[in-house]
Amino acid sequence: MALMDRLRGNAVVAQSGGPTAVINSSACGIVQEALRHDVIDAIYGANNGILGIVREDLFDLRAESADTLEQLRCTPSAAVGSCRYRLADLATDRARYERLLAVFRAHDVRYFFFIGGNESMAIAQRVHRLAAEEEYELRVIGVPKTVHNDLAGTDHCPGYGSVAKYLATSIMEAGRDTEAMYAFEPVTIAEVLGQASGWVAAAAGLARRREGDAPHLIYVPEIPFSLDRFLDDVREVHRRLGRCFVVVSEGILDGPGEHTGEAAAVGTFGPRQLGGVASYLRQVVAREIGIPCRYNRLDTCQRNAVHFASRTDSDEAYLCGREAVRQAVAGQRGVMVTLVRESDRPYRCTTGLARLEDLADGVRQLPRHFMDVAGTNVTEALRTYAGPLVLGEVPLRMGTDGLPEFARLQRRPVPRKLPVFPGKTP
Amino acid sequence: MALMDRLRGNAVVAQSGGPTAVINSSACGIVQEALRHDVIDAIYGANNGILGIVREDLFDLRAESADTLEQLRCTPSAAVGSCRYRLADLATDRARYERLLAVFRAHDVRYFFFIGGNESMAIAQRVHRLAAEEEYELRVIGVPKTVHNDLAGTDHCPGYGSVAKYLATSIMEAGRDTEAMYAFEPVTIAEVLGQASGWVAAAAGLARRREGDAPHLIYVPEIPFSLDRFLDDVREVHRRLGRCFVVVSEGILDGPGEHTGEAAAVGTFGPRQLGGVASYLRQVVAREIGIPCRYNRLDTCQRNAVHFASRTDSDEAYLCGREAVRQAVAGQRGVMVTLVRESDRPYRCTTGLARLEDLADGVRQLPRHFMDVAGTNVTEALRTYAGPLVLGEVPLRMGTDGLPEFARLQRRPVPRKLPVFPGKTP
Repeated sequence: MALMDRLRGNAVVAQSGGPTAVINSSACGIVQEALRHDVIDAIYGANNGILGIVREDLFDLRAESADTLEQLRCTPSAAVGSCRYRLADLATDRARYERLLAVFRAHDVRYFFFIGGNESMAIAQRVHRLAAEEEYELRVIGVPKTVHNDLAGTDHCPGYGSVAKYLATSIMEAGRDTEAMYAFEPVTIAEVLGQASGWVAAAAGLARRREGDAPHLIYVPEIPFSLDRFLDDVREVHRRLGRCFVVVSEGILDGPGEHTGEAAAVGTFGPRQLGGVASYLRQVVAREIGIPCRYNRLDTCQRNAVHFASRTDSDEAYLCGREAVRQAVAGQRGVMVTLVRESDRPYRCTTGLARLEDLADGVRQLPRHFMDVAGTNVTEALRTYAGPLVLGEVPLRMGTDGLPEFARLQRRPVPRKLPVFPGKTP
Repeated sequence: MALMDRLRGNAVVAQSGGPTAVINSSACGIVQEALRHDVIDAIYGANNGILGIVREDLFDLRAESADTLEQLRCTPSAAVGSCRYRLADLATDRARYERLLAVFRAHDVRYFFFIGGNESMAIAQRVHRLAAEEEYELRVIGVPKTVHNDLAGTDHCPGYGSVAKYLATSIMEAGRDTEAMYAFEPVTIAEVLGQASGWVAAAAGLARRREGDAPHLIYVPEIPFSLDRFLDDVREVHRRLGRCFVVVSEGILDGPGEHTGEAAAVGTFGPRQLGGVASYLRQVVAREIGIPCRYNRLDTCQRNAVHFASRTDSDEAYLCGREAVRQAVAGQRGVMVTLVRESDRPYRCTTGLARLEDLADGVRQLPRHFMDVAGTNVTEALRTYAGPLVLGEVPLRMGTDGLPEFARLQRRPVPRKLPVFPGKTP
């Protein structure tokens, strides 16, 4: 691939998939860096991610004040807008990919910065390929983002360190509750994000500094789940400590495992329909072991908790955004910015590049050796890996009312140039 | 009541009921102040609250280091230990009240500081009465504590400001998630603490600074709940904004209301058994309105979130603890320390006293005018009341691993002097 520089044109920034506490740091890095390069003229945000491009629903990021842009670094969720708009491969969804390119052409977009996870990188790769096929010069750069930490090609993903820091802290706190109340409410089950991978659940293991600390048991989707073994595990910890704090990935009943009887039925119909895995397991513990059990489910709160986000994570998210622009201006395309760990102690990390075509549209699973032999607790390998990612706190802007102030973009619309997309959109 | 001073003896500190982010600040205030008074000799902590006294399971708080005691101010949950040990009135449970007094006599306890909510204050009053009947000089002082804010006699309760600050912030954050993802996940329901009162749910309303901000709808137990009206409310907000963020008290189906059909069944069997109110309502929304709906349930995480606790709340909790000791040493007994608001702007608050016998063993409900006419949003009256309670942040002690460090008491046991209590304890 020959590097072409001095490609003049406009840029589009899009966010995709589930929000994180630091995805806006990446957006901030992109915009602040793009403002420094005179080959980039307009900088557009895509309302609701890829869907905003299909709908030609763009807004002017240059119209935002420098202060608002800077404030993105302490603003959770996806301020540019996000979506879960599925686009299959080029053969299946060609019309919609053509539409994306048509919108880019209409607005002279030559730089496309796409912040997202696995599915988004697959889409970015297809946009890149189509542009190459049609000989439309477009620099597509992926910026990694996912609390699930399941992107290939990068040491870790922006978003993961912050969910790790917040969850580990919340479980230290809730674990102290179980410890104080053990005589009456000895078991607590916390359900955390992770349909297909256990990275988030494993991060909660950072809370356990000493034997006896919560969490006492962790269940991840990568390790087959057995209800009988789960009950035995809870009984054993409860007998030994008088209490038991359990962390479960939301997807543990979706994977392989011995889901006999009721659990099989729950798995079949989807535990989400029955109120989630923790709610289900809580009832099983109460019935089978006969001890009261509480449960909590932090759901979207955990992935947006900028109020206790990791500074390391936030800074790396920002760095990935800046680097995406620098690489694009230098001529790169069809790549994703990656995080490359240089050392654990002291922790040092820099950026690299991975070719989008080399990233499988799959899920990088938690390595088996990050969990112990029993499969219910994390190992030193996990601690060495995840520990540095939670260092430092993100400075917030606090309002006079004692609550954080988040940025809100004014979203000045970019006039449409194309007819409405005839295809179906949500 | 004549004030008797110079009563020399030992002190017992006990915590009771559900933990909070700041109950340990009260314990810290008690111990640090008690250390200043030479009429107080030993300072004992009761393991698991009142249960620890019944079991004569005490530990020596003087054996804790000054640094550990100070660290209690940024340590969540009940470090001294708590419980939900029910004690009925003197007529019913006389043997156990006699036991409490026997333990106090055996250890020459003359000062009893009891940090708790409504039930605890009723117990404190009975201990006070029995001691008076038996002419055992005992200074029983209640220290208010409850995230539910439902204690009579005090402007507000330590613990409430912190749950308010954390919840309002978490709902601002999760609300931004719903805002970014509205095209695909337009409705989110957050279930918060509050079986019998809506103070906690109402506090979440502080998150809504502007029209359009989450939460859009709040449901509290004090206002009868109708499933049909709820669905209409969600439909209306969703039609208007394209999204809807709902906060529900966990107890809304337990109160009066039109619980027709399924909701009536849920109410009868207890929504907790079915995975909680939010999980139930999520399914109803998905089925009846036909739009995807997420839910979260912060449960014990919300009441222990010292990582984003209110400094105002923490300082007031500490103040209540100190004042309890000062008043006891000055001769008070049979009273609870109260918080007395002197002004809203600037917020000024001092302490007062309420007689334990004047505190009903009930629940102070959220005033109707703190909610709007529709009963689904908070009013300026709520904001004026709750707003000042969330001001400031509690400084944490951060470990080198990027997570908070909490105090852990060494709990040096006090030798037992009595036979084991023959009555049943958990």
